[in-house]
Amino acid sequence: MELKNDLILRAARGENIERYPVWLMRQAGRILPEYRAVRAKLSGFKELVETPEFAAEVTIQPVDLLGVDAAIIFSDILVVPEAMGLEYQMLEKSGPWFEKTIRNREGLIYADANIDVLDRLGYVLDAIKLTKKELNGRVPLIGFAGAPWTIFCYMVEGRGSKTFSESRKLLYTDPELAHELLGRITQVTISYLKAQIEAGADMVQVFDSWAGILGTEQYAEFGLKYMAMITDAITEVPITIFSKGAITSVPALARLNCNTVGLDWNMDVSEIRNIIGETRTLQGNLDPCALYSTHSEVEKRTIKMLDSFTSKRHIVNLGHGVYPDIDPEKVKTFIKTVKDYEMR
Amino acid sequence: MELKNDLILRAARGENIERYPVWLMRQAGRILPEYRAVRAKLSGFKELVETPEFAAEVTIQPVDLLGVDAAIIFSDILVVPEAMGLEYQMLEKSGPWFEKTIRNREGLIYADANIDVLDRLGYVLDAIKLTKKELNGRVPLIGFAGAPWTIFCYMVEGRGSKTFSESRKLLYTDPELAHELLGRITQVTISYLKAQIEAGADMVQVFDSWAGILGTEQYAEFGLKYMAMITDAITEVPITIFSKGAITSVPALARLNCNTVGLDWNMDVSEIRNIIGETRTLQGNLDPCALYSTHSEVEKRTIKMLDSFTSKRHIVNLGHGVYPDIDPEKVKTFIKTVKDYEMR
Repeated sequence: MELKNDLILRAARGENIERYPVWLMRQAGRILPEYRAVRAKLSGFKELVETPEFAAEVTIQPVDLLGVDAAIIFSDILVVPEAMGLEYQMLEKSGPWFEKTIRNREGLIYADANIDVLDRLGYVLDAIKLTKKELNGRVPLIGFAGAPWTIFCYMVEGRGSKTFSESRKLLYTDPELAHELLGRITQVTISYLKAQIEAGADMVQVFDSWAGILGTEQYAEFGLKYMAMITDAITEVPITIFSKGAITSVPALARLNCNTVGLDWNMDVSEIRNIIGETRTLQGNLDPCALYSTHSEVEKRTIKMLDSFTSKRHIVNLGHGVYPDIDPEKVKTFIKTVKDYEMR
Repeated sequence: MELKNDLILRAARGENIERYPVWLMRQAGRILPEYRAVRAKLSGFKELVETPEFAAEVTIQPVDLLGVDAAIIFSDILVVPEAMGLEYQMLEKSGPWFEKTIRNREGLIYADANIDVLDRLGYVLDAIKLTKKELNGRVPLIGFAGAPWTIFCYMVEGRGSKTFSESRKLLYTDPELAHELLGRITQVTISYLKAQIEAGADMVQVFDSWAGILGTEQYAEFGLKYMAMITDAITEVPITIFSKGAITSVPALARLNCNTVGLDWNMDVSEIRNIIGETRTLQGNLDPCALYSTHSEVEKRTIKMLDSFTSKRHIVNLGHGVYPDIDPEKVKTFIKTVKDYEMR
């Protein structure tokens, strides 16, 4: 089916665009009362992720309600470790939690790389198919996965952490085990992203949420190496990589075979453009907290960001997922400002 | 009393040194069985902080047991917000917690800047005096405080957070209130550091643990501005600033009236030396996780770091506080490697 709005795909490929495309990380989620209404009917977060009808419904909500230029499939990066053998729970207060963790070679039984993603993650693929059908070509659908390093962090630590010191410890005490596990995650992630594309995803994004806890050298060895395998393998659709906090690794990221590099809100767009030139599209990066300010201030800050763009190779987004207590009207102001902005 | 070992003070001032001085952030703490023995006798963390005899005892332990070149007074950065009117609790599992928070103008009643620090924080000053006496000139004693931005984060958020979105929100919704609160914290912090110096602290360090959650511009406005007031006010002894994660702000940090800039483990010593030149001493920055590796690997990585130093303006430390489950023998290997290292 032909897309009626393919702005984001053209921006990712560095083609001509009439205006900057805009979407928000976590746009399908607690920010919308309509999402909360769906969520309230269910037993929990996982039922929503695992039921294609509901996942498709909340995926499409921000397209209808906010007017974004892309939908992103409602899911979680932790479906991959679960498919490999580590079941997770999403606790209301403290977030993701794994009963088992992988901290030695014996633990590798919980990291099976030889799985059939069509079977284990069929519910995500069904949600993508259903969403594509219901979107009916209005906007592209983004698929996604966690980066191997970030998935590794959860599989070793078993939960969120400020320092992920258990995960980083393994890089020193058993780097071979770390590489084995990262390799397995990478293998599954590539199959999973390809299956998402096969199911209908028009572009994909890889989220490396914990990139910033490694120094440049270690991130090259344990992060970028595996990210490169993914960007080399995914040739079917545009691919975006978002390595949060990895500011010193941005030049290396921009050398990967990706179309788009996501920037967090602490990264300076102009500086990064100077470093990497026009070979990649940049995505981001308004501070999500800017949406707490007044409508006129949101507009002012959004325009300031747009004015800092010196080319068409930009996809507008926040520099992090939208915070759940942001007023959706502020999000609309952000989106309207981008849509009304006259490109130079 | 004359110091028998003033290496760290000379390194901070850029004077000649025979070898690099070494200490560890959080060296007085759970890493040592001797600390845990003292702690086990008490009702909680706060009793330890608030009882000069115990605080002095654990402050001196790493000097005796590990052979560090400086002691740092055992205390907590949260004693300042408490002295201003916001009582904190240290919860075993989840860390600091404040019953009240400051999120509007009415909240400012919990942020009294006109306090007598000699009275409210007398227990820290007594601990410093006692420690100085018991150290008997063996090594210098470091005093410390949290940076205004980091203290602000706790006073607004009321607890730790990954994003401190409540604290950052205030920068957008009521920047005037934010500046008022930051100004008050700064005023108390300056008095407090001066009182610590008066009580015997030979140098001081300001910890900005949450510097990294702000972009460069906001950190300049809400962080560095107040850090500068502190570094301008403290002229009596060398002052170190440690802004964790503020990699893009390091050049600006190095322009403050400080002697030493602390580097976290993600910062590249050579790159930063290239940027800021020889005008400041650098402190750091071995990855604390490196101490999980074997003794020979600890030695190798420590030497690699020392080899990257191109001048004498260095104080050796980790790039973050030592993790509580590190084997003290590994710390000894780290320290011995530094002490045995032949300066070029």
